[in-house]
Formats: sequence, structure tokens, C-alpha cells
Amino acid sequence: MNDSIRVLVLGTGQMGSGIARLVLQKHGLQLAGLYARRRQREGMDVGRVIGLDRDLGIHVETNLENVLDRVRPHVAIQATCSTVADAVKEISVLLGHGVHVISIAEEMAFPRYRSPTIADTLEALARQHSAAVLGTGINPGFVLDFLIITLTGVCADVQAINAQRVNDLAPYGPSVLATQGVGLTPEDFGKGIESGTVVGHIGFPESIHMIASALGWTIDRIEEERKPIISNVFRETPFVVVQPGQVAGCLHRAVAYRGDKTVVTLNHPQQIHPQLEGVETGDVIEITGTPNLRLAGTPEIPGGEGTCALAVNMIPRVLNAKPGLYSMADLPIPAAVLGDVRKLLAKGVVKTSHG
Amino acid sequence: MNDSIRVLVLGTGQMGSGIARLVLQKHGLQLAGLYARRRQREGMDVGRVIGLDRDLGIHVETNLENVLDRVRPHVAIQATCSTVADAVKEISVLLGHGVHVISIAEEMAFPRYRSPTIADTLEALARQHSAAVLGTGINPGFVLDFLIITLTGVCADVQAINAQRVNDLAPYGPSVLATQGVGLTPEDFGKGIESGTVVGHIGFPESIHMIASALGWTIDRIEEERKPIISNVFRETPFVVVQPGQVAGCLHRAVAYRGDKTVVTLNHPQQIHPQLEGVETGDVIEITGTPNLRLAGTPEIPGGEGTCALAVNMIPRVLNAKPGLYSMADLPIPAAVLGDVRKLLAKGVVKTSHG
Repeated sequence: MNDSIRVLVLGTGQMGSGIARLVLQKHGLQLAGLYARRRQREGMDVGRVIGLDRDLGIHVETNLENVLDRVRPHVAIQATCSTVADAVKEISVLLGHGVHVISIAEEMAFPRYRSPTIADTLEALARQHSAAVLGTGINPGFVLDFLIITLTGVCADVQAINAQRVNDLAPYGPSVLATQGVGLTPEDFGKGIESGTVVGHIGFPESIHMIASALGWTIDRIEEERKPIISNVFRETPFVVVQPGQVAGCLHRAVAYRGDKTVVTLNHPQQIHPQLEGVETGDVIEITGTPNLRLAGTPEIPGGEGTCALAVNMIPRVLNAKPGLYSMADLPIPAAVLGDVRKLLAKGVVKTSHG
Repeated sequence: MNDSIRVLVLGTGQMGSGIARLVLQKHGLQLAGLYARRRQREGMDVGRVIGLDRDLGIHVETNLENVLDRVRPHVAIQATCSTVADAVKEISVLLGHGVHVISIAEEMAFPRYRSPTIADTLEALARQHSAAVLGTGINPGFVLDFLIITLTGVCADVQAINAQRVNDLAPYGPSVLATQGVGLTPEDFGKGIESGTVVGHIGFPESIHMIASALGWTIDRIEEERKPIISNVFRETPFVVVQPGQVAGCLHRAVAYRGDKTVVTLNHPQQIHPQLEGVETGDVIEITGTPNLRLAGTPEIPGGEGTCALAVNMIPRVLNAKPGLYSMADLPIPAAVLGDVRKLLAKGVVKTSHG
């Protein structure tokens, strides 16, 4: 068997740490390095940073070029940011080194919509350096787009799509909680929306355009609405405390139109501990078409855990792909990688020059 | 825009007819011909055979070589049979003419398990003639394998898979009803199982091995059990009458083991009009793993309608694929094709030599 696939993880938050822990568990993968944007993490032992109770003998690095030159990864998983504008610099450096990239930045799920020029640049760079780039994650990237598209595959016609994801933000870190306004007063939530510190869900336009692109629809406009979910009870997580009357999360909704016709409606109320007020979490997809379809699951597919797993499980798909920029709708389906990851690779896809 | 994609449909039963009707509705597809195994259909107008109330001016043909030479299709959809052994001759002829093939023969969903030698031959033939072959269908091919694999993609680990599909056979034609023993006495059902005329669901080993292959599991053994579903009430379809005490369908179950551990359990009670005895149809997938997952839908994804749609919706995926033999787990996800199919094709995939 070949040497292990060397994986570089970018990001030391909840997601980066979870991904790194999972890489350590998989046969055929080697956690080659961990990159942090935060300078103060330089030199810390990776094991401690990702929440293990032991040292791993490898250290967090904060200079991306240096870590690439030293560990020569085959693939990198980016968990440092949410927007394409913020993600593009690291991705470009990775591609420039011929490293395949899996990004969980929300906007990278379908970068071509908001950032067509950057998408073209990444596509060209990927081809130039024989690497593939994929944006993935539970949402966007799976529940409210990929699964919907998959289900339409059994339809002769589709009139409208309605989907809802009711989730629990309690497992998330402080940066995610802040972007949903968790812990704010209703007044500060409104100010946060205006100033852009409270953003709600990032990814509705990406999901909608991924769906539209797959189905052959042109979308004329998307309307988004964000409302505070005001708690009637005390709620808390390790990172935030919500008093009654304060904001437990954000109810974010997007509606896409073709002409005057509503074709996609996505609802995504995100809050910490919804069950404390009797709200059941879950995912629901409804397709009005030929045939009508409805698929639902309770509780919701866990966002954090699921995103980490998806990012790692897509490694063989990305390594097998032709060079280029991909969304989840462009590659073969993910599958839990339970055996040796290397057995899933087409011959020759792990470049020996990296060895 | 290029000329239309010429589609040849093989089979004039419920499925072949449904597929042909759908091909007629899609922009960018042309129903180039309809092939029947039944000699008595030779020369009949295709419109009447597929259930339209008008002539189409093209005629059913029963010599496959002749129809291929005449219409030079880009892709053929095979709806003539269930087993690989029965399907291989037509597929080989199609591939020999450089025609891409989508087969809804149940065993073609994962031919490598039951027929590894034939699978190798088809793979070689496909590559030799620059064509792709895909097995698809709602089950096997989608609900009890493809969707399950997709869901495991969000799992860090999988311990066991349980899935159930409760469906209604009422929309199906006489050949499907006969293979499920519908309308027999319980005694004749037992004899039918022994003689092989009652087969239950075709496709459990295919689904299980498709799942195992995607996850990196080796399956040590599969146990299958078929029981008659005895009706307490009168049930009927255009093709069969079931009196109380007679068989309304077949409860077929498969359990797959790794060593002594049950890893996959698939339940598939198939009968006509289950709602007449208060049985709700539906699909349920449960994954025991990290995380646990459950996704369910009621009623079931319709088998006949869904299979026709899937076969047609996979046309662009098959035309874009590299030459070879594929299962649904090997290609990008299906999507309802609502716009012009030709817009979904990579450049140059429809060979101009066919024009």
C-alpha cells in the first residue's frame, strides 16, 4: 500500500479541531499539519489544540507557505472562514502548491453565484496546478441543496421546492453563535442585522443557485428575511448565556422566484436548545412535482459533526476528480469512509512527486 | 444548439412506455426509436404502443441491429428484463455500436456482485467503444442503496443500517405482479418460491454490495426471507384480482452480516393496495453510527414513475461520464432535467460522427 494521504487542516476552531480529530481516526490518512490564522497558536501542540488529552508531537503553524513546503500535503481542508472573499487567498496558495482543497467556507458551496470572477480564477488555477477544489458542509452543501437535488432526480417535473431545517446551535463555538445574534437583546439583534455583525445563515443564495443550476432553472430574485427568536426561558451553552427576553437565535428564510412564481422556499430557524421550548429539531424536504415527494428526519442531521465527517469523507472523491472547481452536485456521492481511504483512490491520483 | 440527443428505448412494457413518454417531453431529447422483444409488436405505431392517443409516425422494431443502424442513437435505455444474464446480450450490441446505455434491469444496479465476469466484459466493451453503461432504478439503484450511501456521507462511523420500503404494487404491470405472487393462493406462493416463478424483490444483494463497496465493508453473508402477504380483503388492479385469503404481495427481507454482526437489514413488503388494510406506504432509512440518522418519507417514492424519471434524468450524467461501467454511487447525483438536456453536457460529449 502507498504511503498515507497527507492531510493539512486549516483552522483550529470547533470545525478545524473536529476535522483534525477525524483525520487521525481514518486508515490511510495522516494529519500532516494544522494551520491557524491566530498567531498566538503558533507552536502549540496539535493534540492539545484540537481537544485531545495528549500531545501529538506536531505543532500548530501560522505561516501557510512554510507548512506547505515542509509537510507537502496531498489535500487540505479549509475551516477558517465563511465567505469566498475571505477564503480565496488561502485556497489560491494551496492550489499554487498543487494541493487539492476541500473548503467548508459556506459561500464556497457554490462560489460561482456571488463571486463569479473569483470562481473563474480558482477554476483556472486548479487546472493549471492539476488540483481539485470542492466546497462542502451540511448547510450549505448537503441538506438544503444536495439532498434536494438528489430527490428531484426521481421527478419528471418539479413545480416548487419547500425545505426547512430546524437545528440546535448549542454545539457551536462563539463565532457561529455571534453571527446568529445568540445572547443579544432584541434591540441589539436588529442593530446587528443593520451593521452586518448578525448575519443569520450564510448560504441561502448558494443553495438556491446550486439547485437552480442542477435543474436548469434561472432564478429572477431571492428575498431573504431574518427575525430574532426570542427566548421565554433560560438557555446556556459553554459559550453563551441567554436570559428570558433575550435572543436564542435567528429565524432566517429565503424565497426564490422565477417571474412571480415562488419556486424555492428555504426556512432555517437556528437557535440554542430549541427543545427547552418544545421545538423539535429536524430536516424536511418537500417537492411539489411529478411525483410529489416528502422526506423528513428528526432530529436534524447534526451540522457540526456532519460537516466534519463530510469534509473528510469527500477526500477520495476530490482526489479522484479531474482538476477544477466543484460543488457537491458535480462529484459522485459522499460515503462514510470506514476502510482504508487509499483503497478508494483511482490509480495514480496521489502524486508520487509529493512522496 | 446541437441536434437533439437521440434516445432509443428498449422495452414496450409499463416501464419502457413510461420512459418513452418522458423522453418525448424533454427539451433536447428525441425519441429516435422503440425496440420490442415481442415480435408481434413489430411495425406498430410507437404512439399507440406507449399509451398516447395519437400516432407518432415512428414504428416499433424488433431487430436491434437494424434499429441501431438506422437511427444511430446516442444513448439507449433498456427496460426489457431484470437479470444481468438476460440484459447482457442487448447491452453488448448497444455498446458494440458505441451507444451509451442506461439499464433499469435490477441486477444491473450492481452487476459486479452476481456476475463479476460479465461486469468485466461490459466494462472492457464500454471502454473499447467509448461508451458508458449505468444501472439505475428506484430500487435497487436509489432508495435502499444510493440514498443510504449518501446519508452515510455525513457519518464519522457507521455501525448498522436499517431500511424499509413499504410500497404499493398497484401501478405495475402483470410481469411484476407475477414475480411477487400477487393473486396466488398461499400454497401456490410457496410452490412459486420453490420453482423460482415467485422471486420477491430483485436487488437486495445488489443494494447491499453497492453499500458495502462504497463504505469499504466486506460482507460475509446475506440471508434472505420471502413470506406471502395474505389479504384479508378484496383487492384488484387492471391486471390482477386478489380475494380474501389470497396473496396480495411478498414480504421480502435481507440481512447482511460481517462475521456474526448484522450490518445491513433491508425490509421490503410489496403488495397491491396496502392502504386497504390500513398499511401506510413509505421509505425509512435508519443509520446507527456517529451520528445516528433517520430519514423517512410517506408515501413511498413511487417505484414506476420514479424509475422512468431517474433513467431519463441520468442521461446527461452518462453522456458526460468517461467510458466504463457505473453504478449510481459512481456518478454525480441525479437531478430533474427541467431545461434543455443539451445544456448539461460537457463540450464534445455528443459525438458528431453520429450526426
